[in-house]
Amino acid sequence: MQIALDAMGGDHGHEELITGALLAVKQAGLSVSLVGDEVLLHKHLDSLAPDGKTAKLIKIVHSSQVIGMNEHPVDAVRKKKDASVMVAFDLVHQGEADAAVSAGNSGATMAAAIRKLGRLSGVSRPGIASIFPTLKKPVVLMDIGANVDCRCQHLLQFAIMASAFSRINGVIKPRVGLLTIGEETGKGNSLIKETYPLLEKSSLNFIGNVEGRDVFQGNVDVIVCDGFVGNICLKVSEGLAEAAMLMLRDEILKSISAKIGYFFARKAFRAFRKRVDYAEYGGAPLLGINGVGIICHGKSSSQAIKNAILEAAEMVKRNINRDILESLAASNNVVQLEN
Amino acid sequence: MQIALDAMGGDHGHEELITGALLAVKQAGLSVSLVGDEVLLHKHLDSLAPDGKTAKLIKIVHSSQVIGMNEHPVDAVRKKKDASVMVAFDLVHQGEADAAVSAGNSGATMAAAIRKLGRLSGVSRPGIASIFPTLKKPVVLMDIGANVDCRCQHLLQFAIMASAFSRINGVIKPRVGLLTIGEETGKGNSLIKETYPLLEKSSLNFIGNVEGRDVFQGNVDVIVCDGFVGNICLKVSEGLAEAAMLMLRDEILKSISAKIGYFFARKAFRAFRKRVDYAEYGGAPLLGINGVGIICHGKSSSQAIKNAILEAAEMVKRNINRDILESLAASNNVVQLEN
Repeated sequence: MQIALDAMGGDHGHEELITGALLAVKQAGLSVSLVGDEVLLHKHLDSLAPDGKTAKLIKIVHSSQVIGMNEHPVDAVRKKKDASVMVAFDLVHQGEADAAVSAGNSGATMAAAIRKLGRLSGVSRPGIASIFPTLKKPVVLMDIGANVDCRCQHLLQFAIMASAFSRINGVIKPRVGLLTIGEETGKGNSLIKETYPLLEKSSLNFIGNVEGRDVFQGNVDVIVCDGFVGNICLKVSEGLAEAAMLMLRDEILKSISAKIGYFFARKAFRAFRKRVDYAEYGGAPLLGINGVGIICHGKSSSQAIKNAILEAAEMVKRNINRDILESLAASNNVVQLEN
Repeated sequence: MQIALDAMGGDHGHEELITGALLAVKQAGLSVSLVGDEVLLHKHLDSLAPDGKTAKLIKIVHSSQVIGMNEHPVDAVRKKKDASVMVAFDLVHQGEADAAVSAGNSGATMAAAIRKLGRLSGVSRPGIASIFPTLKKPVVLMDIGANVDCRCQHLLQFAIMASAFSRINGVIKPRVGLLTIGEETGKGNSLIKETYPLLEKSSLNFIGNVEGRDVFQGNVDVIVCDGFVGNICLKVSEGLAEAAMLMLRDEILKSISAKIGYFFARKAFRAFRKRVDYAEYGGAPLLGINGVGIICHGKSSSQAIKNAILEAAEMVKRNINRDILESLAASNNVVQLEN
């Protein structure tokens, strides 16, 4: 198994990314191709893994360009043909890698994946899923930003693809919920009202509407929404988790007694922070592309990069795209879809 | 100043509501009409405020019906003409109260307000605003659920009305942000793309797009979105705040040292919980109705009810609706609106 890692993306620099790759090759029987400036990457790799054994599992593939976090995705992908993220997906296209992982510009990663690999047959809109922490098992939410204006058949396909991803993660019969503003049937905007009957007729394990507050309860495995709503959900959650940590610190700094308390409870605090920190949760899978790709949070730690590489490997090993194609076919027998 | 309080709504029962009313009349020079079953309310009031002085500022107005939390708002309001929330808004309509407050069924409160008071002239869609805690000053987000399918002119009017509410709360020139999925102009779904130029042309202090993570930063005073997105934002935030408290408790219970730490830091924890607890933040104003109304969270404590009553009084005193009418007129000179 060979995973291509865009070694130029991410907010924490090459070291964090390469360390993630080293952790992954050490833990699992796979190899990683680091894609980026070869001089730079060789230098970092030599200092991080001076022993020959690990280094043998790491290959460096040169690329001369980088897409910045604020560049326009489609333009950048069109202009920078030798960008690290483009080369990473090209490796997948050429059969020289099984999957690609990037912590760079999310839009550009999606655009590069579609440009190099194309859509999976029958999928109208590939999208991005994300894993949210909950009080129980994590939940998969899709789409989180690739498709801002959706029709009901797109939401049905998100449900199908996210269910397949949930199965990869060990959920046998993923419970699918439709994100809206009330539990009763018929609650929501016009898109939701059109999507509900499609999900109901499908062969998915549709449990009905879920509300924003259900996201963190852990009573549903897959939550479906359009990319506009999903992205706001994700960013609001990230923003609140960060703000809450700052507010808590604020309150603790107000008294000596609380500071003492913090000292005794600091491990619990760290564990809590990790639990609500999105950057810790591996990556967001691109679903509906003709291959396997994962977008990581720009802030990803080496642990998160490692988790993303292992997740990508699992998606390849368990052949998620075959599962998606079969589910699409099963669904097409019941629900008539337009592309 | 006379505020009508629906004394039958809310999850915590009559005592919490009546205590809130008593706190309000003690703190501010106003009177409250408790609307609901008079026998029940007299009994509670006698036990909570046995002295004549406070009781003189509290009036009881009988109503024979109650709308449940799960009833269909429009149906319920049509059928239950003597429901407490209907009678409360009728008092405003008759000039016997200056504003109405309810912690009952939100949809029914909105429906009762519109039925009894009507829309403010020139407002196409009344909506509900909500106050979100941030790292700095609270931010007003509108709409949070009254209007799920919106057009751009509705969002412009939400911005105008929420700015007026922000001024009531002491912000002189409220900074208005448009909630979307990227900071750059042009990022978002089609509704956002149509709304952006309207806000830009308006006389509002429009600062451009804001993302989900900006909600809690406190760098914007008013955030505009449709009611579907706003409701999901609110519920996701409430859900995460609750889940985070449970996760933190979980981590603390795992070790004796952390439990000791919690003991020393418990005041800070309580202050933190209060800061992220939405039920503490008074209520959500109904904006665009021909009168003043506030919807409280079902879980509202007596403190939150008191805050809502004081907020309603402030809205009346500062004549929020005149401010809205003037801003609408100013905006109509610049931007052509359809109703």
